[in-house]
Amino acid sequence: VAAGDAGLLTDLLEPLHAADIADLLEQLDPSDRREVLRLYSGEIDGEILSEIDESIREEVIENLPADVLAEAVRELDTDDVVDILEDLEEPQQEIILSALEDADRVAVEQALSYPDYSAGRLMQREVVVAPEHWTVGEAIDHLRGAEWLPDQFYHVILVDPRMKPRGYVTLGRMLSSRRDIALRDLMEDSFRTVRATEEEADVAYIFTQYHLISLPVVDENDRLVGVITIDDAMTVLDEEHEEDMLRMAGVGDEASLSDSVAEAAKGRAVWLFVNLLTAILASLVIDLFADTIDQMVALAVLMPIVASMGGNAGTQTMTVAVRALATRDLTAQNALRIVRREIAVGAINGMAFGLVMALVAGFWFGVPMLAGVIGLAMVLTLVAAALGGIVIPMALERFDIDPALASGPFVTTVTDVVGFFAFLGLASWLLL
Amino acid sequence: VAAGDAGLLTDLLEPLHAADIADLLEQLDPSDRREVLRLYSGEIDGEILSEIDESIREEVIENLPADVLAEAVRELDTDDVVDILEDLEEPQQEIILSALEDADRVAVEQALSYPDYSAGRLMQREVVVAPEHWTVGEAIDHLRGAEWLPDQFYHVILVDPRMKPRGYVTLGRMLSSRRDIALRDLMEDSFRTVRATEEEADVAYIFTQYHLISLPVVDENDRLVGVITIDDAMTVLDEEHEEDMLRMAGVGDEASLSDSVAEAAKGRAVWLFVNLLTAILASLVIDLFADTIDQMVALAVLMPIVASMGGNAGTQTMTVAVRALATRDLTAQNALRIVRREIAVGAINGMAFGLVMALVAGFWFGVPMLAGVIGLAMVLTLVAAALGGIVIPMALERFDIDPALASGPFVTTVTDVVGFFAFLGLASWLLL
Repeated sequence: VAAGDAGLLTDLLEPLHAADIADLLEQLDPSDRREVLRLYSGEIDGEILSEIDESIREEVIENLPADVLAEAVRELDTDDVVDILEDLEEPQQEIILSALEDADRVAVEQALSYPDYSAGRLMQREVVVAPEHWTVGEAIDHLRGAEWLPDQFYHVILVDPRMKPRGYVTLGRMLSSRRDIALRDLMEDSFRTVRATEEEADVAYIFTQYHLISLPVVDENDRLVGVITIDDAMTVLDEEHEEDMLRMAGVGDEASLSDSVAEAAKGRAVWLFVNLLTAILASLVIDLFADTIDQMVALAVLMPIVASMGGNAGTQTMTVAVRALATRDLTAQNALRIVRREIAVGAINGMAFGLVMALVAGFWFGVPMLAGVIGLAMVLTLVAAALGGIVIPMALERFDIDPALASGPFVTTVTDVVGFFAFLGLASWLLL
Repeated sequence: VAAGDAGLLTDLLEPLHAADIADLLEQLDPSDRREVLRLYSGEIDGEILSEIDESIREEVIENLPADVLAEAVRELDTDDVVDILEDLEEPQQEIILSALEDADRVAVEQALSYPDYSAGRLMQREVVVAPEHWTVGEAIDHLRGAEWLPDQFYHVILVDPRMKPRGYVTLGRMLSSRRDIALRDLMEDSFRTVRATEEEADVAYIFTQYHLISLPVVDENDRLVGVITIDDAMTVLDEEHEEDMLRMAGVGDEASLSDSVAEAAKGRAVWLFVNLLTAILASLVIDLFADTIDQMVALAVLMPIVASMGGNAGTQTMTVAVRALATRDLTAQNALRIVRREIAVGAINGMAFGLVMALVAGFWFGVPMLAGVIGLAMVLTLVAAALGGIVIPMALERFDIDPALASGPFVTTVTDVVGFFAFLGLASWLLL
C-alpha cells in the first residue's frame, strides 16, 4: 500500500471510518506508518487522532505539520481534545492548546485541572440546557436558532437560574409532545448527576447499573459543568476490563501491542521478579525437607502436582472474587456466605481430586502410605487455596489496594507454601 | 429487614432503582429472598426481573403469582422479555408468553427463532421509522400523533417503501432543523446495519469501534426488523469480558456468586481435571530424571522455580494475545511482528532472570555448574513460554476455538514440560 502513490492512498482510506484508519495505522510498523502519514497528512481527520492508541499517538503527532494538527483538533469536542492532551509532553500540549479557539482552550484547560481518571476529564463541556419553565415549543425554537450544537446529544438538561441541574428530558419525549407542554412535565423519573471529581471507574459503573445514555457532571457547588456520554463510559468500561485482565496476569496495565520490545520486557519483569521471590520462598520450604526427598525421590516427582492444583484452584477463586468486587456483587453483607461457599467448594474438589491422585500415586509407586499422603495434602492445599483466593482480594480491597493488581503473588505464595509444606511435611511424618 | 413488615419493606424499596433492588435480592440468602418476594410481590416491577442475575431469576419467577408476573412482563420492551424467556424452562415460558398481548407475543416468538447470542435475540422490535421523503415537520407531527413509542429512542431510521433502511437522522438534528427541511438532507454520513443472525459479540464490537448509539437490524432480504440500543451492547460487552476472564481462569463462564456449592464445585472441577492431567504429564518428565535428582537433591529444591517462572511468563504473553485477538488488534498482518516481539521479550527476561537465578543458586548451593544449568534452563523456558503463549491462542483462534477457554492448559503444559526437561536434562548432562 505505502509504495508512494499519495492519490491512491487517499482514495483507499477516504471511505473508511476514522476508527478503522486508526487501527490500520496501529498495525503498520513504525517506518511504514511514517510514510503513510507523510503521504496522507494533507487531510488528516481529528477523529483519527482521538481513535488511535495512546502508545503511538505521540509518534503520529510528531510526524504531522503544526497547521494540519491545529486543523485536526479544532473539529473535536473538548473531551476528545482533553483525552489527546493528557498523554502528551508539555511542548506538544502547548502546540495543540494554542491551535484551539479561546473558549475551547479555556474549557480544555479547566478540564485538565481535574484529577487524572476523574469525571471532569471525561466530560464534554458542550451541554444542551434549557430553563425549567420553558415549553417544548420554546426549546425547539431555541435549538433551531442555536448557532452551534454538539455532534450528538440525546437529552436536554433542565437547569434552575443558578445552573443547578433539575432533571432531564429525552429528545424522543420532546419530539412527540405538543409545543405548549412544559418541559418540566416531561422530565424523566430518575435523574442522577455526578461530581467532576468522581473516579471514572465509578462513572462507568453508574452507566451500566442504571442504563444511562448521558450523565450530567456538576462542580462542588452542584452547578452543571459538563456531560458524560455513554460512548465515553463504554470506552472506560472497556479499559477497566483490560486493566483488570492485564493486571491479574502481571502485565503492566498500560501494555499495548504497539510497545517496543524493551518497554514490554520492562513491564513484565516487575511481575516476574515478584514471582521469583515467591518461588524462592517455596523452594526454601522444599529445602527444609531435602533429607526426606533424598530418602524417597518419588516425593520430588509428585510434589509439583500438589502445588499446581493448589495454584489453579486459588486462581479460580481469586478470579471470581476480583470480578465480584469489581462489579460490586461481593459486599460486606454477603462476604461471609461467599467465603463459606468457597471453602466448601475447595473441600469438595480437594477430596475428589485427592482421591483421584491417591489412586494414581498408589498404582504408580505402589506405596499405599504415599497415596494417603498426597490425597490428604491435596485436601489441605485446595482448602487453603480457596481461603486465600477469597480472603486476600477482600483484604486488599479493604486497604484500598487494587485486588486485580496484587492478589496473584499473595495467593500463589499461599498455595505453593501450603502445598509443599503439607505434602512434604506429611510425608516426613508418616512415611519415614 | 425481612422481619415481616410488608409496608415498611415497600417504603424502603420504593425509591430504589430496579437495578439496585435486583442487586439486593441477589445478595440475600434463598430463604430471606423468598420472604422478601412474598411480602413485596404485590407490586413487582418488570424491570427488576430483567435486571436480576440469570441464576436466581428462575427461582424468583417461581415464587411470583402468575398474575403479578404477567403484569410485570407486559411493561417490558420485547428485547427484555426475550432475555428473560431465554433462560426459562418450557412451562414457565408458556406462562409468560400467554400473558403478553398478541402483537408482542408474535414479536417475542420471532426473536426466539433466531440463534442464541445473535443480533436477533438482542434487538427490540419497537423501531421508529419514517419514509425517506418526509420533512422534519411531517416526522414531528407523526411522532406527536403516535399512540405508542419505545421508552427510549435516539434516531429515526429512514426506510424505503420496502422497509429497507436507507440511513438515520439523530433526534438532535431533527429538533434543531426547520420544519420544511427534508429528513433525507439531515442523514448522518455513516450508516451501518447488521444481520439478525450476526453474533452478539460482533455487534458489541461494532458499537465500540464506531461509537454507535443504536444499530438497525435487517433480515436476509435487507428489510428492517428491529434495532439494538447501546445499553444492550454495553451489557454484551460486559458479559463478554466476564466470560473471557472467567474462562481464562478456568471457572465456568456461566459462574455466578449465586451458584450453589455443588454447581460451583462442578464448574471448576472440569478445569482442575485438565490441570491434573498436565501436572501428571510434567511429573512423568521429572520421573525420567529420578536418578539424577537422587544424586543431587538440590535439583528438586530448585526445579519448581524454573517451572513457575515459565508458567508466569507464558500467562503474561497468553493474556496479551487473548486480549488482542478479542479486540481484533492482532491480525494476520501484524502476527509475525508480534510473535517476533514476544520471543525477543522472552529472551531478554530469560537472560535477566537466568542471571539473577544463577547467582542465587550459586551462593545457595556453592556449585558453579548448577548455577549455569539453572540460568540456561531459565532462558530456554522463558523463550518457549513466549512462543507457546502467542502461537497457541492464535492457532486456536484459527480453528475457531475460543482462545480464552482453551489456551491455558496448553500453555501450562508447554512451560512445565519444557521447564522441567530443560533444567533436569541439562543437569544430568552437565552435572553428572
